[in-house]
Amino acid sequence: MSFTTDITVRFAHVDAAGIVFFPRYFEMVNQTVEEWFEAELGTSFHQLHLEGEHGVPAVRIETDFVKASRLGDRLRFALDVTSIGRSRVDLRIVVSCRGEERVRIRLVVAFVSLEPLQSCPIPDALRAAMEKFLVPQSEPS
Amino acid sequence: MSFTTDITVRFAHVDAAGIVFFPRYFEMVNQTVEEWFEAELGTSFHQLHLEGEHGVPAVRIETDFVKASRLGDRLRFALDVTSIGRSRVDLRIVVSCRGEERVRIRLVVAFVSLEPLQSCPIPDALRAAMEKFLVPQSEPS
Amino acid sequence: MSFTTDITVRFAHVDAAGIVFFPRYFEMVNQTVEEWFEAELGTSFHQLHLEGEHGVPAVRIETDFVKASRLGDRLRFALDVTSIGRSRVDLRIVVSCRGEERVRIRLVVAFVSLEPLQSCPIPDALRAAMEKFLVPQSEPS
Amino acid sequence: MSFTTDITVRFAHVDAAGIVFFPRYFEMVNQTVEEWFEAELGTSFHQLHLEGEHGVPAVRIETDFVKASRLGDRLRFALDVTSIGRSRVDLRIVVSCRGEERVRIRLVVAFVSLEPLQSCPIPDALRAAMEKFLVPQSEPS
Repeated sequence: MSFTTDITVRFAHVDAAGIVFFPRYFEMVNQTVEEWFEAELGTSFHQLHLEGEHGVPAVRIETDFVKASRLGDRLRFALDVTSIGRSRVDLRIVVSCRGEERVRIRLVVAFVSLEPLQSCPIPDALRAAMEKFLVPQSEPS
Repeated sequence: MSFTTDITVRFAHVDAAGIVFFPRYFEMVNQTVEEWFEAELGTSFHQLHLEGEHGVPAVRIETDFVKASRLGDRLRFALDVTSIGRSRVDLRIVVSCRGEERVRIRLVVAFVSLEPLQSCPIPDALRAAMEKFLVPQSEPS
Repeated sequence: MSFTTDITVRFAHVDAAGIVFFPRYFEMVNQTVEEWFEAELGTSFHQLHLEGEHGVPAVRIETDFVKASRLGDRLRFALDVTSIGRSRVDLRIVVSCRGEERVRIRLVVAFVSLEPLQSCPIPDALRAAMEKFLVPQSEPS
Repeated sequence: MSFTTDITVRFAHVDAAGIVFFPRYFEMVNQTVEEWFEAELGTSFHQLHLEGEHGVPAVRIETDFVKASRLGDRLRFALDVTSIGRSRVDLRIVVSCRGEERVRIRLVVAFVSLEPLQSCPIPDALRAAMEKFLVPQSEPS
């Protein structure tokens, strides 16, 4: 099962060539992860950060920009979990528009405490909720 | 009649104090205007800019930040038109969260051609569509 | 005496029309205030926020966008203080490029504690440092 | 030879945890590439995009976030070329602060025409200028 959310390309996202400026995709990627936490994992970034003193910073990201996106395009972000470690989660996010692939992302996030900033084990309830989005490792990406 | 849209405060919007960094409100304001054009005025920014070679840049903006907004807040943006000139429109945008006022904005946008960049008359169809959102001048703001 | 800093318009700042997207000016305005604090007021935003648990959020901003700025323009931000209250400072920031005025800003910032978020008196040393940038009220803006 | 530029972490770059929000690094990366073009390659993004109708969009990016950066940190971006193809350039950008590595990036950009958006050969003068930053392939990254 993938988690999906749709984000429309707004004026704030595009560059002088009228296409999405690549750093803006990462704001959308972060929003996708936020929405996934809220909708499916039983906690919000607000709760994580401000109440629980935890965070999920990116530790590695690999991105292929397959095809440009333009102002007004309605982009679909589809998120899967490819592996779950003690304190890290590997995500695959595919961005498409009307079925056409635009961007492919592999994002690793860590589960950390904020003070001090260090990795810590993913809580069991959170892990269990994430496992529902786990895809078999052998699946072609 | 007001045009309204809801935008959730995301991680990308907040600062080190956990509250919305004020420049991010203006990205949301621009998004509100974009959505108003698409939903109510019969044209999108994509059509305006990339097909019609027109734009609606801000020429003046006045903003009062009444109360801070935090990560996860669902903000309502309510837009009214307070006056329509030959080539400019005065907008009032009130941002609130669960009925509590957060930000008050008076935004003037111009209707311009892009090449060369100069003001030009608002087309009649666009003007007629905007008039439905016009509030009486005497209304207290 | 004005505080001045120069910021070049980068690709991240411009929109589909190749001109500065107006919310980006406010990021530059905030950077100007940050640099003023560091260079002239004897404290950095890092010290204020993370060590001192204080902040200087915007409470009001009035902006006139006089003329568009383009990719590569080297913008000069000139900051003056127009008044200093118990816990607020009124700033005037004029943005120009090779002597041509581009944007005029009147920004009011408050001096606040972060936990709880409430205004508090500007410390004497900070006030004294700010006064060096105070311009006579009667000066035409 | 590396091209280097220094960028200070500003309030606009950090998140609720007081550390750089990862999409902001990519705005800094793009600025680094822009400054490299202007300072060393004999052309600016303004000239490329607005006059020459060309661009250098990212086609692939791999990033390791080694250690968090905080408000006020002065980051050094060091850029090398690792290979130059017909219409693509592979860059390595290492971000550090006072000698401590923070982020490691491998960025592939394409040389494209804008209308239509398609890859085209890197002009000889640009290629020659880029070659001065080429590091031997066998060098450990």
